[in-house]
Amino acid sequence: MILRDDCSALDASDELSSLRSGFRLTDGEIYLDGNSLGPVSEATSRRVNEVIDTEWARGLVRSWNSAGWMAEPTRLGDRVAPLIGAQPGEVLVADTLTFLLAKLIGGALELRPDRHIVITDVANFHSDIYIVEAMAARAGRPMTVKAIDRTTLDQELNDDVALVLLTQVDFRTGEMLDMKSITQKVHAVGALMLWDFAHSAGAVPLDVTGCDVDFAAGCGYKYLNGGPGSPAFIYVRTKWQSVLQNPLPGWLGHARPFDFELKYEPAKGMQAFVTSSPSMIALAALDGALDVWDHVTMEQVRAKSLALTDLFIDLIEDRLPGVFEIVTPREHEKRGSQVALRHIEGYGIVQALIERGVVGDFRDPDICRFGFTPLYLRYIDVYDAVERIVEVMNSEMYRDPRFTVRNAVT
Amino acid sequence: MILRDDCSALDASDELSSLRSGFRLTDGEIYLDGNSLGPVSEATSRRVNEVIDTEWARGLVRSWNSAGWMAEPTRLGDRVAPLIGAQPGEVLVADTLTFLLAKLIGGALELRPDRHIVITDVANFHSDIYIVEAMAARAGRPMTVKAIDRTTLDQELNDDVALVLLTQVDFRTGEMLDMKSITQKVHAVGALMLWDFAHSAGAVPLDVTGCDVDFAAGCGYKYLNGGPGSPAFIYVRTKWQSVLQNPLPGWLGHARPFDFELKYEPAKGMQAFVTSSPSMIALAALDGALDVWDHVTMEQVRAKSLALTDLFIDLIEDRLPGVFEIVTPREHEKRGSQVALRHIEGYGIVQALIERGVVGDFRDPDICRFGFTPLYLRYIDVYDAVERIVEVMNSEMYRDPRFTVRNAVT
Repeated sequence: MILRDDCSALDASDELSSLRSGFRLTDGEIYLDGNSLGPVSEATSRRVNEVIDTEWARGLVRSWNSAGWMAEPTRLGDRVAPLIGAQPGEVLVADTLTFLLAKLIGGALELRPDRHIVITDVANFHSDIYIVEAMAARAGRPMTVKAIDRTTLDQELNDDVALVLLTQVDFRTGEMLDMKSITQKVHAVGALMLWDFAHSAGAVPLDVTGCDVDFAAGCGYKYLNGGPGSPAFIYVRTKWQSVLQNPLPGWLGHARPFDFELKYEPAKGMQAFVTSSPSMIALAALDGALDVWDHVTMEQVRAKSLALTDLFIDLIEDRLPGVFEIVTPREHEKRGSQVALRHIEGYGIVQALIERGVVGDFRDPDICRFGFTPLYLRYIDVYDAVERIVEVMNSEMYRDPRFTVRNAVT
Repeated sequence: MILRDDCSALDASDELSSLRSGFRLTDGEIYLDGNSLGPVSEATSRRVNEVIDTEWARGLVRSWNSAGWMAEPTRLGDRVAPLIGAQPGEVLVADTLTFLLAKLIGGALELRPDRHIVITDVANFHSDIYIVEAMAARAGRPMTVKAIDRTTLDQELNDDVALVLLTQVDFRTGEMLDMKSITQKVHAVGALMLWDFAHSAGAVPLDVTGCDVDFAAGCGYKYLNGGPGSPAFIYVRTKWQSVLQNPLPGWLGHARPFDFELKYEPAKGMQAFVTSSPSMIALAALDGALDVWDHVTMEQVRAKSLALTDLFIDLIEDRLPGVFEIVTPREHEKRGSQVALRHIEGYGIVQALIERGVVGDFRDPDICRFGFTPLYLRYIDVYDAVERIVEVMNSEMYRDPRFTVRNAVT
């Protein structure tokens, strides 16, 4: 039997507890949706206003040089790199996830010109599937996109596979895939591996170098807290940077952007994957949000994440036995930083919980998702959230029509 | 002989003069580079902080619905529409100019599947040429991109031309093209017309409806003052919206984004051209910047723009006869909202002027560009700018090595 006092004791000894004050959270509300949109940090607000009030307002056009705007996509890339185990110069921050995937997919398919298959996961986030299909359709040769059951990957891999695109943590179930063994298998047939880190970056330790990952992309607005529609990031292993072509070339990716040359010649390194300049204001929001990682290691975050999700699962099983199917794997090595509970009334449950001050989200057809971000969540938050879930379930308030009528987003 | 007092008198009777106080400008500095990056408006700063402090910080993920984030690209599109003569529902704000051009070019080439030529202008901004070549290379059929001398367009047009992409105001010379007659000629051979409004939107009156324009795109950070790397906009004439396919499809362009369907089905109208969600913070900056257009008509802006550029040209000719070649056309109907002066020492001249508090910019090989934005520039600013140009030219300070050694951006 876990008591609230036990949770308070865990908070008292939590070495990450001081980070919470850097985030703007609403008193009494427990935010378990940082896996969808992370909250505002004080550093984000400060950095955005610095860009507006000083760099833009006073520096004006000169800030492209004097404030280093030209280099922001690579500078921020180098700030993200340690979170995924990349080397300096291997990560770029720009655009949004889908555009970045388009660049990587388009470029990767040209590196395997004699192959005709792209494999992805039928459970992948749907827009990953849209963009892989769109880029395959424009590859200049017949390509087949196979959206498979990922457990059958071994059977599907063969020497006609050009590229495999998988999301490392499943957005519905929170299951984490074994990046190293899968990448090895993909390489064994001569294919290239592209990982989507949307639900991984800032949530779980990643080692793209040790896992020999070719390409990766992730988004800035979930566990990185960069704000709604934040710029995203891509990783290109150093060995590919000289041969991977950006299929969406732009001004700032040119080797000499201010020579205004009619012929495109890519810049060296990750700069070639810049198309237009991303918004400096949007980059500033992410820049500020990344400050927290100067004070914490990914290993510390992971340890607390597992403790929080273990606690949540234990409490749910203890307090509401048999009420939910716990979809997220029990095994630590297969778990991201969220817990998904399946319930046929999931939609109403999530809405009722939001009204009770526990913000999670719902994914069709029956998944209640709860994200656990160790940077600002306390053990007592987990305890109190489960208390409120118990109240919602016991009262059956989730059946109320004001919770069951659907609107667009939760 | 024009006197400074004459300019003061013009300012005293200027019906736009009250708008200047809404912008953050540095005392003593004359900013003639709003054609490259517009300045900060108070409304921009206010709106960005409203999104951060209220919509994001308090609303968190709920703001996708409650603050209308899902609809921001189309809502802002409807704010831009009147500036280009478009109807509600024909403009979308998102991404950056090059990505938006990629979508329009990719989509347009599929509407003319039996044609093999794309025409653009060899004097076009170079990244327009890069992206048209990149999309033509992925059209699924052999395509030829012709970057022509635009004065030879008549000879180049034939029934194998799929698409013509021209920039309506030349970024170097400030020459404005006749949108109506060129669009007619392009349509006469059955080709489609795509206009780049990078140097037009907010600078000159545009009438996409009256000119029967098929597609257009423009950027948000020049005369629209949306900030460095601001989201851009596209226009798709209503009749094309049901058939033009977005070649870079994404989550938020789906007809039912929260049904998470594996098959892409485009939303109706401009929403289909959203890929990922743009940054809400970046959109907020542009949103605030657009407020000024609630208080001024494009016709008022045009009248003052021509008066300012006339004054500048007259003063340059009067005070520095024969020193510069005035590249920008004298005829009002051929002039945008900038004046370009050619001088072999142009680079050093621009740098020396910046030090003297007149911010223009330089474009290779010998163009000094001066942008005139009626929203915040006064007639005395034009007078004083020319005074300082006279000082720089007479002193020959532009020959000083600290002005002639090149750095990346001016």
